[in-house]
Amino acid sequence: MENFTFYSPTFFAFGKDTENEAGAYVKQFGGSKVLIHYGGSSAKKSGLLDRVKSSLEKEGVGYVELGGVMPNPRSGLVYKGIELCRQEKVDFILAVGGGSVIDSSKAIAVGVPYDGDFWDFYSGKTIEKALPVGTVLTIAAAGSEGSGDSVITKEEGMLKRGAGSNLIRPKFSILNPALTQTLPPYQTAAGITDIMAHLYERYLTNTKEVEVTDRMIEALLLTLKHEGPRVIADPDNYEARANIMWAGMIAHNNSCGVGRSQDWSSHDIEHELSALYDCAHGAGLAVTMPAVFRYTMEHDVMRFAQVAVRVWGVEMDFAHPEVTALEGIRAFQSFLIGLGMPKNFAELGAKEEDIPQLVKTLCYGNGRTGSIGGFTTLKEEDCTKIYQMMV
Amino acid sequence: MENFTFYSPTFFAFGKDTENEAGAYVKQFGGSKVLIHYGGSSAKKSGLLDRVKSSLEKEGVGYVELGGVMPNPRSGLVYKGIELCRQEKVDFILAVGGGSVIDSSKAIAVGVPYDGDFWDFYSGKTIEKALPVGTVLTIAAAGSEGSGDSVITKEEGMLKRGAGSNLIRPKFSILNPALTQTLPPYQTAAGITDIMAHLYERYLTNTKEVEVTDRMIEALLLTLKHEGPRVIADPDNYEARANIMWAGMIAHNNSCGVGRSQDWSSHDIEHELSALYDCAHGAGLAVTMPAVFRYTMEHDVMRFAQVAVRVWGVEMDFAHPEVTALEGIRAFQSFLIGLGMPKNFAELGAKEEDIPQLVKTLCYGNGRTGSIGGFTTLKEEDCTKIYQMMV
Repeated sequence: MENFTFYSPTFFAFGKDTENEAGAYVKQFGGSKVLIHYGGSSAKKSGLLDRVKSSLEKEGVGYVELGGVMPNPRSGLVYKGIELCRQEKVDFILAVGGGSVIDSSKAIAVGVPYDGDFWDFYSGKTIEKALPVGTVLTIAAAGSEGSGDSVITKEEGMLKRGAGSNLIRPKFSILNPALTQTLPPYQTAAGITDIMAHLYERYLTNTKEVEVTDRMIEALLLTLKHEGPRVIADPDNYEARANIMWAGMIAHNNSCGVGRSQDWSSHDIEHELSALYDCAHGAGLAVTMPAVFRYTMEHDVMRFAQVAVRVWGVEMDFAHPEVTALEGIRAFQSFLIGLGMPKNFAELGAKEEDIPQLVKTLCYGNGRTGSIGGFTTLKEEDCTKIYQMMV
Repeated sequence: MENFTFYSPTFFAFGKDTENEAGAYVKQFGGSKVLIHYGGSSAKKSGLLDRVKSSLEKEGVGYVELGGVMPNPRSGLVYKGIELCRQEKVDFILAVGGGSVIDSSKAIAVGVPYDGDFWDFYSGKTIEKALPVGTVLTIAAAGSEGSGDSVITKEEGMLKRGAGSNLIRPKFSILNPALTQTLPPYQTAAGITDIMAHLYERYLTNTKEVEVTDRMIEALLLTLKHEGPRVIADPDNYEARANIMWAGMIAHNNSCGVGRSQDWSSHDIEHELSALYDCAHGAGLAVTMPAVFRYTMEHDVMRFAQVAVRVWGVEMDFAHPEVTALEGIRAFQSFLIGLGMPKNFAELGAKEEDIPQLVKTLCYGNGRTGSIGGFTTLKEEDCTKIYQMMV
């Protein structure tokens, strides 16, 4: 195991009706004037926004609102949010929504106290200051509720890039699984896929002897394998929703990713797709991961065999571990398709003729110098082949 | 899943040589004058204390020392520590040792700013203030490095009781697996047993549909099943030590115990043994758990069958789940014996004739009114039978 530090100071309030405590937590964590940041109309229609506002009013906490966060959140709204916060002297950002809303909130939080362009932090600059952020989560997916990460898309050139710092870990996150019961099945499935991707990205390591984190990752994958189909079949299943929601947080607060090299090439390859086609991140990952896994499998066949046996229930072929490994990848892809996820470029709305452009942005965008990948190094020609496998 | 809150704000620095950063972390978390609290001579002999002191000196942090913490730490030394801290105007407690040293440090931390007797907090009073605590861990066992719990033994009547609060969660904990390589095998094994007990106590729940935490607990048990024998066979195995050490923290920071009822009757039953006979807590648990599990198994046979199959590799007897359940308990006990743990009262140094006294203190001590247990309610006659099963 490699040396590491781990710090996850977010306070979690989990369960039914917990959104009514939002005001009390904002106050507890030092907020007096809040920006309520949210997405589309569902938070309004469901009455969630009203409940959150009531809880703020009850505690005497002031607020302004900014809705309109889109999936794959854009820099334009971030600039708007920063301006609004400065005008209104906001001292706390409250995200009411999913990963996109939370990531947009984190971007605003770093932008407000910074004189320059917030995009600097999404181009490699170290975050040194940020307003505190709290969240009321409405979809189990990104894990942004417990992480110090944020991903934003810049409209110019549709660049999708990330920033990270313990300073943008939420001070508190409110997780009420019941809020996810009204999600369309496709979004629920995309969320589950995203969580599984966070686990696989950590599983694909070159660090030896990391039994504890291997086992934890497998435990969470097993949970999603069990609960995913249950929740698609029965969207009102609170217990399945609850298990998925806690798994989503643990999967990405890095408690099961510590001390080991990680991959993240599936995420990088997918980010180009959701940036260009505006598809759901999880849906893009459902198409990307099986291709990446098949392409990189030879790098460590036994690792893929291990997850095939321990998670996907494949019987070990001791004479031909590569058969077991491949069967595990197949089982994973079948599982995703069974949840309702796409399996190729056509279903995703992506186009083969864009591959050269995708590869160029992927391998040379954001200061990269021709390759990506943590598990294996993927150069232009590798990425081209992987995109072609997805067609 | 039940509603819950979860908060684990401890900063962890994990890996080789990390004890040299103790001074920097004390400073970062606001300490200017430290009590270095430790146990016996091993921390001195190994040079660990000197390295910690050097790191404090390097950062200009002052310190005083108090050694002599015994396993099953006593209130006497806590009083001494409180007095010393007040005299020397100490503002930070640095525990250098295992669970006993950390628990003693936490007791001092709550006692210093309190006008009354610190024991009040171990008799049910709510903790409202405490000095900050940091730790340099030297044994993977108690999980106190990441928990808000502390257990102290009061010399009068040898009462062993606990206190808990987020205020006594360590600000930082330094976990260097290499520091555990010099432990005697018996202590290593007792530590592993304690970690497994923290997992079983959470596993034995009456809450239905807690797949995610069930799976996480099983993952950690599987890790210990794999790494325990490796480290007993090869004490210098850094990787096995590292996996056990991180598992020990995760097992007790409650990330896998949230939203579910827990048991803790094995701990309660054992505490009477280590209080009376001063045996290692883990050794007492090795004798206690199999008896408790056999006695309570009927309450939920399928739960015991599940852990037997998923962790202990027992084949499910679908016609007779109780056979599978029992086989899992047997496998667990054999595993503990294989690590070098005792199997009965005689090997533990406990006496059958003390059972009435043990039961009385257990069921009526510390404000209890005749019973213990979270999984099942255990009354006097039940506890008597369980102790008798251990003879």
